Amino acid sequence: MPEQPLLKPMEWRYCDCFWADKKDPQGKGTMVGFKLLLQKQLKGKQMQKAMSELVRERIKIEEEHAKNLAKLSQNLLAAQEEGSLGEAWAQVKKSLADEAEVHLKFSAKLHSEVEKSLMNFCENFKKDMKKCDHHIADLRKQLASCYASVEKARKALTEQQRDLEMKTQQLEIKLSKKTEEDIKKAQRKSTQAGDDLMRCVDLYNQAQSEWFDEMVTTTLELERLEVERVEMIRQHLCQYTQLQHKTHMFNQSTVGL
Amino acid sequence: MPEQPLLKPMEWRYCDCFWADKKDPQGKGTMVGFKLLLQKQLKGKQMQKAMSELVRERIKIEEEHAKNLAKLSQNLLAAQEEGSLGEAWAQVKKSLADEAEVHLKFSAKLHSEVEKSLMNFCENFKKDMKKCDHHIADLRKQLASCYASVEKARKALTEQQRDLEMKTQQLEIKLSKKTEEDIKKAQRKSTQAGDDLMRCVDLYNQAQSEWFDEMVTTTLELERLEVERVEMIRQHLCQYTQLQHKTHMFNQSTVGL
Repeated sequence: MPEQPLLKPMEWRYCDCFWADKKDPQGKGTMVGFKLLLQKQLKGKQMQKAMSELVRERIKIEEEHAKNLAKLSQNLLAAQEEGSLGEAWAQVKKSLADEAEVHLKFSAKLHSEVEKSLMNFCENFKKDMKKCDHHIADLRKQLASCYASVEKARKALTEQQRDLEMKTQQLEIKLSKKTEEDIKKAQRKSTQAGDDLMRCVDLYNQAQSEWFDEMVTTTLELERLEVERVEMIRQHLCQYTQLQHKTHMFNQSTVGL
Repeated sequence: MPEQPLLKPMEWRYCDCFWADKKDPQGKGTMVGFKLLLQKQLKGKQMQKAMSELVRERIKIEEEHAKNLAKLSQNLLAAQEEGSLGEAWAQVKKSLADEAEVHLKFSAKLHSEVEKSLMNFCENFKKDMKKCDHHIADLRKQLASCYASVEKARKALTEQQRDLEMKTQQLEIKLSKKTEEDIKKAQRKSTQAGDDLMRCVDLYNQAQSEWFDEMVTTTLELERLEVERVEMIRQHLCQYTQLQHKTHMFNQSTVGL
């Protein structure tokens, strides 16, 4: 069988990469290429969930820091200091409260603008992937069954042709009414077997085309989802960085004696 | 007695403010003005110690925050993310470590440049204040004792003068050798009492002058110490603020995707 031509020859695209089956790392059996792709997609979603968990941890750290700073700003140490020095000291404590506020706002924004979106780990994703998996597997089964039918029909045709040939040789040796009848019958059967094979090949081609179309459609869709995921995460990591940046900017502006 | 003229009439200075005794808040007894000043000085040092304690608390909070950020940066969540997104994610974790480092440096500088200096709560200060207290109290006692001597000498002189007067009247009534002798003796005693009084007044003036000089010297010195304390604390609060500012600046520059 000739190599299938690349659909997007100049690019690395999903629709060109997951057709073949891959040997299992353990060496026993093979891994369907499409299943590899599905696993990659599921892993991607897990990564996204893990990222949102790390952001959650960061939020907790910021909340804790804010709590500690706010508590310290309420501390009465040296509260009896007098005059302008007392005012400066009160300002130092006030700046602790301001800083606590900034960290608290940062953590709230991390939650609403980063963690939640990342966590919006479309719960249907796994189900959708399973549906894809079953659909492609069904098409592959159908294709395999059509292939088996073709093989069976090809064998049947070969047998019928051999039978016809044998009977034709018998006729050359000894002409008889019965032999002529047998040859006609064998000719009909052979034609029938030829028609069967043609029908099986048609069915196979139809199944192959269905599988091919579905593979291309699905891999393109999965690729679109992956691009979407990467872009979505990239945006949220940028948002995370910007929030952090703004937090430090704000801290800078609130502190001053 | 006329009001003592102000030494620095146009300013509020310690050397003009702590001469009188103040009624105790509880209403019983009085509080020596100088003791009020000493208490104020001791309280000032306590404030300084309390401030360094608050800075110590801030240091602990920063250390804790740094520890949490560093720990989070070591977290393996989503470490298997691949490609450029994996690199960006590694950068996010790296920035956590950088931020932890910044907070750790901040806390170390707070310790070496603010807390330690504030804590250098000259342990001799309390002892020095006690010495001042005893010295001024001794001078006050001496002054009081001189005053009592003056009063006693004044009374003695009054008695001698009355005695002399009586004896002079007796001489007018009845002239006698013995009376003349008595008068001469009384005159001598009166002159002696006058001299005693003069000597006591001299001693009193001397003690008063000593107390006055010591009060002026000591209050000026205490004022100098207070100005020094306020300036020292002001500088360290500025240092605190600048360190905080630099920390946020640095944080700003280290974060970026």
